[in-house]
Amino acid sequence: MKQLIYADYNATTPSPRGHEDQVFEILQASFGSPSSIHHFGREAKRLMEDARENVAKLFGAERKSIVFTSGATESNNFCLKGVVFQHFKKGERPHIVITNSEHSSVHNVAKFLEGYGFCTVTYAPIHSKGFLEKDTLLSAINERTVLVAIIYVNNETGVVNPVEELARAAKGKKPNLHVHVDGVQALGKLDCTWIGRSVIDSVSVSAHKVGGLKGIGCLYKKPEVSLLPLLHGGGHERGWRSGTENMPGIVSFGLRAKAILERKEPLNHLRTLWNHLVERMRVLPGLEIHGDLSRCLPTTLNFTIHGVAGEELMLRFENAGIAVSSGSACLSGGSEPSRVLTAMGYSRDVAANSIRLSFGEGSRIEDAEAILAVVRGFVQKKG
Amino acid sequence: MKQLIYADYNATTPSPRGHEDQVFEILQASFGSPSSIHHFGREAKRLMEDARENVAKLFGAERKSIVFTSGATESNNFCLKGVVFQHFKKGERPHIVITNSEHSSVHNVAKFLEGYGFCTVTYAPIHSKGFLEKDTLLSAINERTVLVAIIYVNNETGVVNPVEELARAAKGKKPNLHVHVDGVQALGKLDCTWIGRSVIDSVSVSAHKVGGLKGIGCLYKKPEVSLLPLLHGGGHERGWRSGTENMPGIVSFGLRAKAILERKEPLNHLRTLWNHLVERMRVLPGLEIHGDLSRCLPTTLNFTIHGVAGEELMLRFENAGIAVSSGSACLSGGSEPSRVLTAMGYSRDVAANSIRLSFGEGSRIEDAEAILAVVRGFVQKKG
Repeated sequence: MKQLIYADYNATTPSPRGHEDQVFEILQASFGSPSSIHHFGREAKRLMEDARENVAKLFGAERKSIVFTSGATESNNFCLKGVVFQHFKKGERPHIVITNSEHSSVHNVAKFLEGYGFCTVTYAPIHSKGFLEKDTLLSAINERTVLVAIIYVNNETGVVNPVEELARAAKGKKPNLHVHVDGVQALGKLDCTWIGRSVIDSVSVSAHKVGGLKGIGCLYKKPEVSLLPLLHGGGHERGWRSGTENMPGIVSFGLRAKAILERKEPLNHLRTLWNHLVERMRVLPGLEIHGDLSRCLPTTLNFTIHGVAGEELMLRFENAGIAVSSGSACLSGGSEPSRVLTAMGYSRDVAANSIRLSFGEGSRIEDAEAILAVVRGFVQKKG
Repeated sequence: MKQLIYADYNATTPSPRGHEDQVFEILQASFGSPSSIHHFGREAKRLMEDARENVAKLFGAERKSIVFTSGATESNNFCLKGVVFQHFKKGERPHIVITNSEHSSVHNVAKFLEGYGFCTVTYAPIHSKGFLEKDTLLSAINERTVLVAIIYVNNETGVVNPVEELARAAKGKKPNLHVHVDGVQALGKLDCTWIGRSVIDSVSVSAHKVGGLKGIGCLYKKPEVSLLPLLHGGGHERGWRSGTENMPGIVSFGLRAKAILERKEPLNHLRTLWNHLVERMRVLPGLEIHGDLSRCLPTTLNFTIHGVAGEELMLRFENAGIAVSSGSACLSGGSEPSRVLTAMGYSRDVAANSIRLSFGEGSRIEDAEAILAVVRGFVQKKG
């Protein structure tokens, strides 16, 4: 069989060799539920707290800042609904601000809250190069604003938002609002250990984007921040998130957190690959790379070739054995024009025909050559 | 080290030997996200749909009846909130009925919905022997009732509710209400393949109660039943539950479903063990077993010894190397008097000092003897 190339790391990442074995070797200490007070429970709890400690360190924070969830989608739902419902209960009609280029697990939560009348929403418009500007954010905040949600690294374009600066500015205007950051595409790529000392109130992440198992993630939140739980029940996770804890997931996340903390400069080899691609692609006639490349992580490259259907490109990549994504692969089977590219001012045509390449630990410079061969085939054919 | 005995199967169950290896062997076909349309995604999707098929068969239902969740707590939250919010949005003030002996993941959801004014709740009182009677249920239903939630097998007592009969009666009085069943402690113990043909609208289950991984479960629901999603986002699970799918969990659940379907009479060996215990314990002075033993699954035995503190019993079991639970172990670290026993009319004293023994595939007749030795020690000491 032809060697397959995976260039869809922003969707999900493979685990390092032996990772699953390591998880279940650790879990042999106990199959128990960490809530049980007997031997089997206590052993499980110890494993869980070891993992929590490592995950907390990713944020430069204490263990009690980490609430394990089923992933970032749950974390985003938990946070946005948790903040809004608490204000709604007090009889207020709260207002929230999200950028108009959030992941659907923030965007669609806002749409729900707005549609049901639980709050009003301002979709703060991003710059045409893909990032949110401070003044835009500040002008969206009003006296009813209770929450601001900003994506750290955009999942479609790789453009980085200056979340610390934006958070400070937002708090400067309204100190008691909640600043939430969707950190999914930042974890393991950018240092996040400053977050525990920052004004940011909460951050969502998923383990499977950094080589962990699917189905586990967390909400980092400042210990003093109170949220209405999304999952009510037996009071697990110190009351923040009920449900028997996903032990394989938690142990996996802890292992990956430890590996990330020990790794230096994770992006160096990707920078070489990405530069190689960008230099060669940007000169091709009709090919456009989206987003401000100086603010882009070298994990993501989003482009269109004018006059070429995204579907056709996808098919050609598929035939060449290269797995890429059209728009946000998190949009289950969807082929709507990209909301993110639309927010950047691109036409419906561009937004519906974009391709996202994304890279990770297993990506090789040879992958770039295979990708370039596909892309050049189109440009030459067209020319 | 002393051989440890596990008698807390209702809290969680160990996986069969080799189960995890089997899960990750299957997952070698792809690490992709099932939502991705490339090769890696399609392979993952195939594995997911194979698993869904097996899980659906547990309910005698089609694949599209199964919505994978992070477990029964999420499923219960999803269902109750999903039904109530839809009515709330229409400007109604809906009413729901739950028994007063539901698991906390139903009870505390109802408390939340009530406390926030989204609906009113009737907590239908169970019989002193632990089950819900038809007339009690019917008298709790009124013209505003939109949902009835009934636990199938009680997690603390093992008492079985006649859910089919109760569901029919409820629908007979108000055809368009939603009948939800918490099936966590029934799965793998009672045949559930009749549910797909019944009037029951939805059922919650968790895989870790039947030897699967922790962190995965599902909501079975009739395909025509519409619910507001609990997790908004990318539209996974046909729009019912967003978030990248927990592939290890899903594959694990599929394997366990298949094993359950192929197994005959799972309770036979437990019946022998349970009868052995019940015969010897019920004659001990001051020892009381709770619940109607003729309606009890031979998986669970809930008792108190009058005048003996639950804590003291727990400690003695612990020292004997026997893992048991006080009240509902799902109540993370809690030592409140059992809500279920209180609902059965027991005093606060009894409800705070009960012990739950629960058994499963790995339980042996010798476990009964070790348990009896502990219990007899107390009764003799007392006498």
